[in-house]
Amino acid sequence: MLIKPGKLLAQIDSPEDLKKFSKDELVQICDELRQFIVDNVSIYGGHFGASLGVVELTVALHYVLNTPEDQLVWDVGHQAYGHKILTGRKSRFHTNRQYGGISGFPKRKESEYDTFGVGHSSTSISAALGMAVASTYKGDRKKQHVAVIGDGAMTGGMAFEAMNHAGVADTNMLIILNDNCMSIDPNVGALKEYLTDITVSQTYNKAKDEVWNLLGKLSKFGSSAQEVLSKVEGAIKSAVMKQSNLFESLNLRYFGPVDGHDVHHLVELLEDLKHIPGPKILHCVTVKGKGFAPAENGNKTTWHAPGLFDKVTGEIYKKKPTTPQPPKYQDVFGHTLVELAKDNPAIMGVTPAMPSGSSLNIMMKEMPDRAFDVGIAEQHAVTFSAGLATQGLVPFCNIYSTFMQRAYDQVLHDVCLQELPVVFCLDRAGFAGADGPTHHGAYDIAFFRCIPNLVVSAPMDEEELRNLMFTASRFGGPFSIRYPRGNGVMPEWRTPMREIPVGQGRIIKEGEEVAILTLGHIGNYAVEACEMLAAEGLNPAHYDMRFVKPLDEALLHEVFGKFSKVITVEDGCLMGGFGSAVLEWMMDHGYQAQVKRLGIPDEVIEHGEQLELHRDCGFDPAGIADTVRALCEKVRA
Amino acid sequence: MLIKPGKLLAQIDSPEDLKKFSKDELVQICDELRQFIVDNVSIYGGHFGASLGVVELTVALHYVLNTPEDQLVWDVGHQAYGHKILTGRKSRFHTNRQYGGISGFPKRKESEYDTFGVGHSSTSISAALGMAVASTYKGDRKKQHVAVIGDGAMTGGMAFEAMNHAGVADTNMLIILNDNCMSIDPNVGALKEYLTDITVSQTYNKAKDEVWNLLGKLSKFGSSAQEVLSKVEGAIKSAVMKQSNLFESLNLRYFGPVDGHDVHHLVELLEDLKHIPGPKILHCVTVKGKGFAPAENGNKTTWHAPGLFDKVTGEIYKKKPTTPQPPKYQDVFGHTLVELAKDNPAIMGVTPAMPSGSSLNIMMKEMPDRAFDVGIAEQHAVTFSAGLATQGLVPFCNIYSTFMQRAYDQVLHDVCLQELPVVFCLDRAGFAGADGPTHHGAYDIAFFRCIPNLVVSAPMDEEELRNLMFTASRFGGPFSIRYPRGNGVMPEWRTPMREIPVGQGRIIKEGEEVAILTLGHIGNYAVEACEMLAAEGLNPAHYDMRFVKPLDEALLHEVFGKFSKVITVEDGCLMGGFGSAVLEWMMDHGYQAQVKRLGIPDEVIEHGEQLELHRDCGFDPAGIADTVRALCEKVRA
Ligand SMILES: [Mg+2]
Ligand SMILES: [Mg+2]
Repeated sequence: MLIKPGKLLAQIDSPEDLKKFSKDELVQICDELRQFIVDNVSIYGGHFGASLGVVELTVALHYVLNTPEDQLVWDVGHQAYGHKILTGRKSRFHTNRQYGGISGFPKRKESEYDTFGVGHSSTSISAALGMAVASTYKGDRKKQHVAVIGDGAMTGGMAFEAMNHAGVADTNMLIILNDNCMSIDPNVGALKEYLTDITVSQTYNKAKDEVWNLLGKLSKFGSSAQEVLSKVEGAIKSAVMKQSNLFESLNLRYFGPVDGHDVHHLVELLEDLKHIPGPKILHCVTVKGKGFAPAENGNKTTWHAPGLFDKVTGEIYKKKPTTPQPPKYQDVFGHTLVELAKDNPAIMGVTPAMPSGSSLNIMMKEMPDRAFDVGIAEQHAVTFSAGLATQGLVPFCNIYSTFMQRAYDQVLHDVCLQELPVVFCLDRAGFAGADGPTHHGAYDIAFFRCIPNLVVSAPMDEEELRNLMFTASRFGGPFSIRYPRGNGVMPEWRTPMREIPVGQGRIIKEGEEVAILTLGHIGNYAVEACEMLAAEGLNPAHYDMRFVKPLDEALLHEVFGKFSKVITVEDGCLMGGFGSAVLEWMMDHGYQAQVKRLGIPDEVIEHGEQLELHRDCGFDPAGIADTVRALCEKVRA
Repeated sequence: MLIKPGKLLAQIDSPEDLKKFSKDELVQICDELRQFIVDNVSIYGGHFGASLGVVELTVALHYVLNTPEDQLVWDVGHQAYGHKILTGRKSRFHTNRQYGGISGFPKRKESEYDTFGVGHSSTSISAALGMAVASTYKGDRKKQHVAVIGDGAMTGGMAFEAMNHAGVADTNMLIILNDNCMSIDPNVGALKEYLTDITVSQTYNKAKDEVWNLLGKLSKFGSSAQEVLSKVEGAIKSAVMKQSNLFESLNLRYFGPVDGHDVHHLVELLEDLKHIPGPKILHCVTVKGKGFAPAENGNKTTWHAPGLFDKVTGEIYKKKPTTPQPPKYQDVFGHTLVELAKDNPAIMGVTPAMPSGSSLNIMMKEMPDRAFDVGIAEQHAVTFSAGLATQGLVPFCNIYSTFMQRAYDQVLHDVCLQELPVVFCLDRAGFAGADGPTHHGAYDIAFFRCIPNLVVSAPMDEEELRNLMFTASRFGGPFSIRYPRGNGVMPEWRTPMREIPVGQGRIIKEGEEVAILTLGHIGNYAVEACEMLAAEGLNPAHYDMRFVKPLDEALLHEVFGKFSKVITVEDGCLMGGFGSAVLEWMMDHGYQAQVKRLGIPDEVIEHGEQLELHRDCGFDPAGIADTVRALCEKVRA
C-alpha cells in the first residue's frame, strides 16, 4: 500500500516546488509532511522521533536556502526523512531502509541534495566548514553552508574541534543546534545542563527578545542588511553577546534559543541570518516526536525507532512468540554484567550514549554509581575506562563495532600499550542491517587484530558470551568481545559461567576432507550447513575458534595436520581479518593447505537484512555448504 | 659526562625529599631544576621548551600533592622532564630517549609516579576523571586528581568530551590549563583567541584579584575551608563566575589566569584548591622555554626539540655535511605539494597542528589561502578535508601515521565510503625512533588496508614520493601515501614528475631462487642486502610493490609463477600488513610458495634509533640478507 501524501505535499517534488507556496501555506505543508512520515514509518518502519522534531526546520531551510547550490549538511541523519521527502524521494520513501531501497541516511550517491553522507554523529560542522572554506577560496561569498546538529552530537569531540576552527574562519557558515535534550537516549553532560540553563533563563529570554526585535527590523532592509547590521551590532552585543556564552567564547555569533516548531519565525530568521556574514550558531529548541502525541509524550527512546505501530492509537506492534525465544545478545550482555558486578566490586560499566542500545541501562538502573553514560564521546569513554582501570577497577566499555572506529587510537595508545584491564564489548559486530554501510561493523577484527596485547574474541552463542565476559573480568589485561546485532540461539541462556582458557577454541563437530573454522555467532550458520551437507553424505569438521588473538595453536596444528582443505568463515572484512590470521599462522608454521576464506569482500555493502547481506557475500548457510561442496568436488575431479 | 645537579636538587630523589625544604627554598630548587634540564638536553638532546615552561608548576605540584597517592596526569608528556627528575630518575636522566634508556614520556612501567602513559595529546582529562570517579566510588574523598594540559591539547576533541563529563561528575578533579599559546607550532583557533582575550582582559584581572583575596582568607581556615567556602560562594560567584566563561559553561569552576612562573603563589593556590571540592580548572599562563633566553626569545618551534646546542650561547649544533645529502621525506612532501599546487588550483593542504613537522609550513607561507593548520584536531582535519573535496578540491591531508589512529573513523566513514578525493600523507610511518611506542607508525598498513576504496601506497625514494603525489592529485578518489621519518636516498631529488598507474609495482632487480617483495623506503635495505649477497654468489630478485592496495596482480603472477620462495619486507606490523596481503592474494590465486614475512612483530617495541629497532626486528639489511640465506640453505639441504 503506497501512502498518499496530503494535497499540498503531493505537489512538491523538489525545493523549487516548495518555494511556489506562500509563507502562510507552510504550516499546512508541515502538517502534511509530518503525517506522511507518520503514515510511512508506522507501516514500513524506520527512525521516527528525530525526523518529526525537525519538520518545521526542514521546510524552512528548503524554503529559504537555494538548495542544492547552497550546502545543507544533516548531522547523524536520523533527522533527514523530511529532507528526503521534499527533495525528490517522496515516491520511493516507502522503500526506506529496505534491501535495494533508499538509505535511511543522507547519501551523496542518492541525491545531489544529500551533500554529505552521515551515519556517525558530530561530523556536520567539519564537513560544512570544508564546503564553506572552499567557497571562500573560490571567491563565492553568496553561497550558504548550513550544518544541522543535535545537542547529543554536539558532545562529540570533533564537533568542538570543528567549532574551534570555524570560529576563526571567515566563511558563510551557519550551525543550527537542534536541541531536544536527547540523543537516542536522554542527552547527558555539562553541555546539556548548560543548554537547558540558557533555554529557561529569564535573562536569556529577555536578551533574545531584544535581538529578535532588531532582526525583525533588519529583515525589512533586505540586501542592505549588512550595512544596518554594523550599526546595530553594538546594540546586539549589549543584548545577547555581553551575556558571554560558550559559543560566543569560540567566536561563533550565537542566536537563540528559538522555538524550532514555529515555521514562520524560522523562515524570517533564516532569511536574516543569510545576510549576516561569518560563523554563527542558531539554537533551536525542538521536541523529539513533535506532533505525534504517543511519541511526544511517551518514552522518547522507544520512539527513536519504534518498529511498526498503529498510527492512531500509538500501539507498537510486538510479535508475541508462542515459544520461548533466544534473547538479544545485547540483553545477555546487560544482565550478565550485573550478575558479574554483584560478585565483583571492581566491575564498572561505560557506554557512550548507548545505554538502551547496549542494554547497559540495566546496570545503570541497578547500580547507578557503577555504570556511566558519558555522552556521544567514544574517545573519552575508552580513556575514561583506562583511568578507572589504573585504580584497580575492571571497566566493561560497550561500544558498537562501527563506533569503535572513533576510539581506535584510545584503545591502542591508552589501553593496550599500557596493558590495562579494560574489557571492550563490541555490539553490532558484522552487518548492522538496515542502517547500512555507515553502521556495518565490518572492520573491527582487522583493526583490532594488529594491536599488541589485545585479546580478540567472539562468542558463538549466549553461553559463550557469558563465559567470555566472565573470563575477561578475571583476565587482567585488554580484552575484546564482539557479537552481532540481534538474537542468539539459546532460549535458556542463563547458564552457569565458567572461565575459558584465553586463546582456546573448541571442536563443534568431527569430520573429514574439509575443516570449517568459524568465529562467533556465524558459527551457527556452519552448523546449519553441516546439517544440509550430511544429507548428501558430506561430513566436514567444524571448529569454533572463539579467539582471533591469541589463536589456538594446538587446535590449528590438529586442523592443519589432518586437513588439506580449510574454510574460514567470519562476519567481518576479508582483508586482514580472521581468515587472514589463519593464513599467516599456517605459513609461519610450514603447512600448505588450501584455504578458502569466507567473509565480507573489500567493497561497500549496502543496507538490507543481515541474512540477505550474508547471502550476497556467500557466507549464509547455503553459501558455506556450497563452498564445502566445491572443495570436495575438486578432490573427486 | 654526567651532569651534576645543583646543591638542593642533589638532595632530592623523591617528592618526600622536596617537601623537606621550606617554601622559600623552592625558588632556588626551580632554578636548579631548570639548569639541570638545560645541561642535560644541551648535550644529550630531547624535548626542551615544554618542560622549561612548567618547572615552577612541577615543583609546586609535587610540593603540595601527596604523590604518588594523589594522581597527577601530564598531558602529552613533553612537559614531564622536571617531573621525572623529581621522582627518582635524576641519575638516569641522561639516558632519556636513548635506546635502552628512560622514556621521553611518562610511562607506567617506569615509575609509580607516572600515573598514565602519554604521547598523543588531549588524553589527560579523561584519564584523570577515570581515576577521580574510581576514588569517589571507593569512598575516598581526600585523594587529589590533577590533569595538566596545554592550550594546544585543549583543542583536541576528546578534551572537550572529557570536560562535558567532568562538569557533571562529583569528584576531586583539578584541570590545570598550561597556557603558553603554543603546541609544537603556535596554537591556532578560536579557543586560543579566547584564552588570550581573558588573559589580557582588565575585568578578568580585576575579578581574579577579588578571588585571590577570598582564597587568601580561605586558606587560613584549613580543614574547615569547605564550610567557609559555602559562605563566600556567593561572593566568588559575583566576582568571577558572573563573568560567565567557557569553562564555567561546562560547570567547571574557573580560576585564573595566574602567572605560572610564580612558584610561591602556585603553592598557595594549589593548597587552597585542594580544599575546594568538585571539578575545577586553573588557568596558568606560562612561557615555553622559560628561563633559557635563546628559547624564550627565539623561535619556539625550533626550541621544542632543538637537538644538541651550546647552553651558553644558545647555538644549535648542526652537522654541516661536505657532500649534498638526501632531503627529509617531509621536505620533499612540502616542496612538491607547492609545486603541484601551482599547476593545479584544486590542490589544498591540511595539517592538524604539525605545520613544521610535516613541512606543510612551506605551502602555508607561499599560499596562505590554500593551506590550513586546524589545531590538534585530527578528526576534524580529515572531515574538513572531505568537505573541501565535495566542492571539487583535492586536499592533501598530512597526518603522522600514529596520529592517523585518531582519525580512523573519519577516513573510513567520511572519506572512503563516499569515495572522496582526499590524499592522506602519512609521515613518520614505521618506527618513530626516540619517541618510542606511543609514536611508532606501526599499524597504518593493517588498519588502512581493510578500508574499501582506499589506495594504500608507499614510495621507495624521493622520486617515487613525488610521482605518487602527482598520481594521487589526479586520481579522483581516496589515496594514501606513507613515508618514514628522516631522510631519503636522493641528493638530487627534484625529478620531473610522472603518473604511476595505480596499483603498479616495479622490478628493482632480476634474480633467482628467492624473490624479495618490499614496500616503501625499506626497499633500500633490500638493495643493500642484495649487494651483500651478490658477494656470496646469491642472487635474489627484488620487487618494489609500491602499492599494498590495489596489489599489482600481474607482477604477483610473475613472482609466484617464477619463485617458490618469497620474502616480504615492511616497516609495519606483521599482523594484517603488507605480507599478509601477499599471502591472501597467493592463496586466493592458488599458488603454494613458501613466504617469509619480515616486519614489526606483535609486541610493543620500545624507543631507539630506527636502524636499531629494524635490526632488533630482523629487517635491517643484514636481517634481510640472513633471511635470504636461510631460505637458500633450505633448498640446498
Ligand atoms: Mg538531540
Ligand atoms: Mg601549549
